[in-house]
Amino acid sequence: MPHSVHPNDDIAALGKFGLIRHLTKDIRLRNKSTESGVGDDAAVLDYGSKKIVVTTDMLTEGIHFNLEYSPLKHLGYKAAVVGFSDVYAMNANPKQLLVSIAVSARFKISMIDLLYEGLLLACDKYNVDLVGGDTSSSITGMTISVTVLGEAENDKITYRNGACMNDLICLSGDLGAAYMGLQVLERERRLYRENPESQPDLTEYNYILERQLKPEARGDIIRTLRETAIQPTSMIDISDGLSSDILHICKESNAGCKIFADKVPIHTATNAAAEEFSIEPLIAALNGGEDYELLFTVPLSDFGKISAQPGISVIGHITETGGKALLVTPNGNTIELKAQGWNAIN
Amino acid sequence: MPHSVHPNDDIAALGKFGLIRHLTKDIRLRNKSTESGVGDDAAVLDYGSKKIVVTTDMLTEGIHFNLEYSPLKHLGYKAAVVGFSDVYAMNANPKQLLVSIAVSARFKISMIDLLYEGLLLACDKYNVDLVGGDTSSSITGMTISVTVLGEAENDKITYRNGACMNDLICLSGDLGAAYMGLQVLERERRLYRENPESQPDLTEYNYILERQLKPEARGDIIRTLRETAIQPTSMIDISDGLSSDILHICKESNAGCKIFADKVPIHTATNAAAEEFSIEPLIAALNGGEDYELLFTVPLSDFGKISAQPGISVIGHITETGGKALLVTPNGNTIELKAQGWNAIN
Repeated sequence: MPHSVHPNDDIAALGKFGLIRHLTKDIRLRNKSTESGVGDDAAVLDYGSKKIVVTTDMLTEGIHFNLEYSPLKHLGYKAAVVGFSDVYAMNANPKQLLVSIAVSARFKISMIDLLYEGLLLACDKYNVDLVGGDTSSSITGMTISVTVLGEAENDKITYRNGACMNDLICLSGDLGAAYMGLQVLERERRLYRENPESQPDLTEYNYILERQLKPEARGDIIRTLRETAIQPTSMIDISDGLSSDILHICKESNAGCKIFADKVPIHTATNAAAEEFSIEPLIAALNGGEDYELLFTVPLSDFGKISAQPGISVIGHITETGGKALLVTPNGNTIELKAQGWNAIN
Repeated sequence: MPHSVHPNDDIAALGKFGLIRHLTKDIRLRNKSTESGVGDDAAVLDYGSKKIVVTTDMLTEGIHFNLEYSPLKHLGYKAAVVGFSDVYAMNANPKQLLVSIAVSARFKISMIDLLYEGLLLACDKYNVDLVGGDTSSSITGMTISVTVLGEAENDKITYRNGACMNDLICLSGDLGAAYMGLQVLERERRLYRENPESQPDLTEYNYILERQLKPEARGDIIRTLRETAIQPTSMIDISDGLSSDILHICKESNAGCKIFADKVPIHTATNAAAEEFSIEPLIAALNGGEDYELLFTVPLSDFGKISAQPGISVIGHITETGGKALLVTPNGNTIELKAQGWNAIN
C-alpha cells in the first residue's frame, strides 16, 4: 500500500494545527453547496437562501476532561456549548446538534442520563435541536463527539481572514478564568487523593470553577452585533488562548496586530487565584484557553458603536500586511506573541 | 444533582437501540429548519429549496475495527462509506464529510496519513467534500467520528416509516458476505498469533474480505430509482443485518412483513465460506450486518419496473398494520424475525 512518510513521523512534533494542515493540504472541493471547508471555526455550506455552518469537536476522557472533578451533567453542557461557540464564531446561530458517545463497561445508564441532561439543558438555553448521534462501546473511558449546524444570513458569515489594517480588535468578557479554575480543580484532586475525608469550601472560587466546568457561549454578543448593525471583519472564539487565536486571525488575514496588555480584561477572581498559585494572570489569559469568548475585528469607523457596548473590550488593532503579532506591555515594550508562550523581541 | 435512575442501570441490558430511545424520549424540536430528528438513518433539515440530511457515526478500536487486520487506508474508506450509506438510505446524495479522530501516542503521522488516504479516496469516488473535523489525543487506541451531510429534492426524502400494506420489499446486492469475511479475518488472526511465519493465500476469500474491509455504499441504486421514477415508500441501509433492519421499517411503519428465505440473495463465495465455517448462510444474511445494501419498499404497482432492474431482488412484502415480521422458509413454515436471532413460532 503506497504512503508518504512525513520527515518526522511523530504527531507531537507537528502539533494539532500542523497535523490538520498536513492532513488537509491536498483537499479539493467539488460540490456547489460547499462554500468553504477546513480552516475556520466551522465549514460553510450554501444550500439556498441561507448559509449553513457546520463544526465538529471530539472530547476524550483523560485528555479533555477528567471525571474525577467534571460532573457528567456539566460535561454534557460544556460539550454542547463548545460546539455552539464555534458556530457563533462564524457570526451564525446554532440550530442542530448531533452527539455521539462511546463508553466502556464502567458507565451506567444513569451516568449517560446525566450527560444527556446537560446536553439537553444547553439545547434548551441556546434554542438548539438535538437531532441525532450514535452510542457505542469503547475498550476504555468515554469519548464524546459533538457536531453542530447553524445558520446565518448570506452576508453575515464572518471568517478568520477578513481583518484589515487599522481594524479594532475586540473581545467579549474576560480571559484566564477557565485556566485558573482548572488549577484549583487539579489541586483539590491531589488533596482529595491524599485525604479523602477533606471537605473543602470552594465558594471563593465559584466564578473560575464555573468558567471551567460550565462555560457559556456568547450568543448574546452575536445578537448585539446584529442589533447594532456591526459587521465584524473577522472572528474566532477563544478556545486555545488569546495568543493562539489572534495568531489564527493574523495568519488567515495576512496581517499583524498590536494587543495592549493592560487592555486585556481579567476578572478579579482570576487575578486572586493567579496570585494564590503564583501565576502571572496575563499568562493565563494569553495561553490558558477554554474561555469561549469571542475575539473579533471591526472597522475603525465602528469605534463609537463598539465601545458603547458593555462587556466588549477593545484590546488592540490590526497592523500592516505581513506584520507581526505584538503584545505591548504597560511600559511600552513589545513582545511577539507565539502560539504557545511568548518571546521578547526588544 | 437530580437524576432519574433506570430500573436496571446496566447499558448492556437496554442494548444500543434501547439506550438511544431512552436518551432521546424527551427531546422536543423547536427550530423551523429541523424537519426530523433522531430515529432514522439521518436527521432531515429544511434550509430552503432542498432538504439536507445529516448523520453521524462513531467507530472505536477494538469494538468496530481491529487494526491487526484492518489496513488503515481501508478503515478510512469504510468509515466514510458507512456514513454515505446512511445518507443514501434517506434517498439523498452525500455532499460533505467531517471526520474527527482521537489517537493514542502509538499512532504516527504516516498512520493517520493512510487513514486520510482512504477517507479522501472515498470522497473522490462518491464526489463528497471533506470540509472539517477535529484531531485529538486519546489515552488508548483510536476513535473515529464521521459526520456526513447530503441533499435531496424536497419530495424525494425517504424515511423508515412509509411502508404500506402490500408494498414490495426490495434489496440491493447480496447479504452475509461481510460477516463471513470477518470470520476469515478472525481465524487468520488466531493462526498468525500461533505461527507468525504463516503466509496464507486468501485469494479465494477476496469477495467476502473486500465486503468486510472495503464495502461500497449503493449510490448507484439511488440513481436507478431516480432514473426509473420509482419513489420508495420506506428505506434503510443494512448495517445490523436484515432481521434488525426490516424490523426497524416494520416498527416505524406500524406494519408486518413476510420475507421469503429463498429470495434472500447470498453470493456463492458467501455460501462457500459459510459451509467451511459450518454456519447457516441465511443466519449470516439475517444477523451478520455490515452489508451496507439498501432495503426499501415500493408500491406493488412498481413491480414491473423494479423487477427489471439488475442487482435488485424482491424478497417479500409488507403485511397488515400491527402485523408480525415473518420469515417464510422454503417448506412454507413461518418464523418470527427478531432483532438478534430468530424464534420459531410454528
